[in-house]
Amino acid sequence: MRHTDTEYEHELRELRERLLLMAGRVEEMIAQSVKAVMTRNPYLANATIESDKRVNQDEIKIDELCLIILAKRQPVASDLRFVTLALKMVTDIERIGDLAVNVCERAIKLSDKPELQPINDISVISALVQSMIKDAIQAFVVGDPKKAQLVIDRDDEVDHLYQKIFRDILEIMIKDPSVIEQGIEIQSVAKLLERMADHSTNLAEQVIFMVKGKDVRHHGKLETNNKIH
Amino acid sequence: MRHTDTEYEHELRELRERLLLMAGRVEEMIAQSVKAVMTRNPYLANATIESDKRVNQDEIKIDELCLIILAKRQPVASDLRFVTLALKMVTDIERIGDLAVNVCERAIKLSDKPELQPINDISVISALVQSMIKDAIQAFVVGDPKKAQLVIDRDDEVDHLYQKIFRDILEIMIKDPSVIEQGIEIQSVAKLLERMADHSTNLAEQVIFMVKGKDVRHHGKLETNNKIH
Repeated sequence: MRHTDTEYEHELRELRERLLLMAGRVEEMIAQSVKAVMTRNPYLANATIESDKRVNQDEIKIDELCLIILAKRQPVASDLRFVTLALKMVTDIERIGDLAVNVCERAIKLSDKPELQPINDISVISALVQSMIKDAIQAFVVGDPKKAQLVIDRDDEVDHLYQKIFRDILEIMIKDPSVIEQGIEIQSVAKLLERMADHSTNLAEQVIFMVKGKDVRHHGKLETNNKIH
Repeated sequence: MRHTDTEYEHELRELRERLLLMAGRVEEMIAQSVKAVMTRNPYLANATIESDKRVNQDEIKIDELCLIILAKRQPVASDLRFVTLALKMVTDIERIGDLAVNVCERAIKLSDKPELQPINDISVISALVQSMIKDAIQAFVVGDPKKAQLVIDRDDEVDHLYQKIFRDILEIMIKDPSVIEQGIEIQSVAKLLERMADHSTNLAEQVIFMVKGKDVRHHGKLETNNKIH
């Protein structure tokens, strides 16, 4: 049976919508995981870990949809590029979800221990990372390389904040070794957020690659390499 | 023009060979980057950073080859799965190369500073990570899920060693705050190696997914989540 163009367009639209929905879920997971750290709430952390199952299902579903489109529709040119990039991007989005689960695990460990002085920069990084994912996916579905470039630019700010948090906490631990356990956990949370920003930067680089049809990925990567820890 | 089966088989073989070659280059980069750290050799570090360009070209070439196969051959079933997984896997391999570049950057920073006591576990992690990448790619090209499972199992050992290194160095820094700069750099090297192991685990999970045709990825991930920092 030969399918109509309308069916094909419907499948491509479904792919876009599913990616947006999945990315939205992951943004929410990040917000909740950091809230669980800041409010020392293990119940919120556990509920957020639970929600990762949905994200994993999203990945499987999107992978399947891509394979179906490739097998049934045999897309070429820009559609082929869109579908194969969706296959790559879904991996990054899913891994950001895994990293949010790791933040929740830190939140659970921290909730048992005496409170460390509040590290407000954690919330700042979290908000930045959420905006980076949102904008990278938006840039993908509408094919907007300028928006994607703005995501890449924001990664510098995240790296700067991460380094500041790491050193602030190291100083606190050296002054008062009794808080080392908590300090290490908070450093890990900052590192996890910084890795989410790296994944978002990768998403944005892939969008520019798709739209401009030339490979700017390794430019971006060579520059950011100097800042990754 | 209709291509013969032989041409198609040739393209699939070329894809396999290019993946093996790229993975081999990345293994070599890891070995050299860690050697640059241990021998405090900034020249070796710079040469290794330079070799990442080849790896980036490998990625572009493999991506192109996959798109050509998808567009021209319209593979189905296991071939379609092989090509789409190659597309995903090449991203992980390339990112491991980026992480080796980051190790080289640490090596360059460390070569300027007084030597910290030798941390031999770094070499142990490095050897483990190289074997994980090699085996994950071998498992992919021959379609061997048992070999892939052994890669996943080795990730525990890497996580354990990473945590040991992190705490050993923290102890050294607390006893002697004058070595904090070096300590942080070595901790970063350990973290970078641990992330390479995570990518190798992801590679192996994808192989099992491809061969068994069912999604074991999220099993593995849920288990390893407890160990990632």
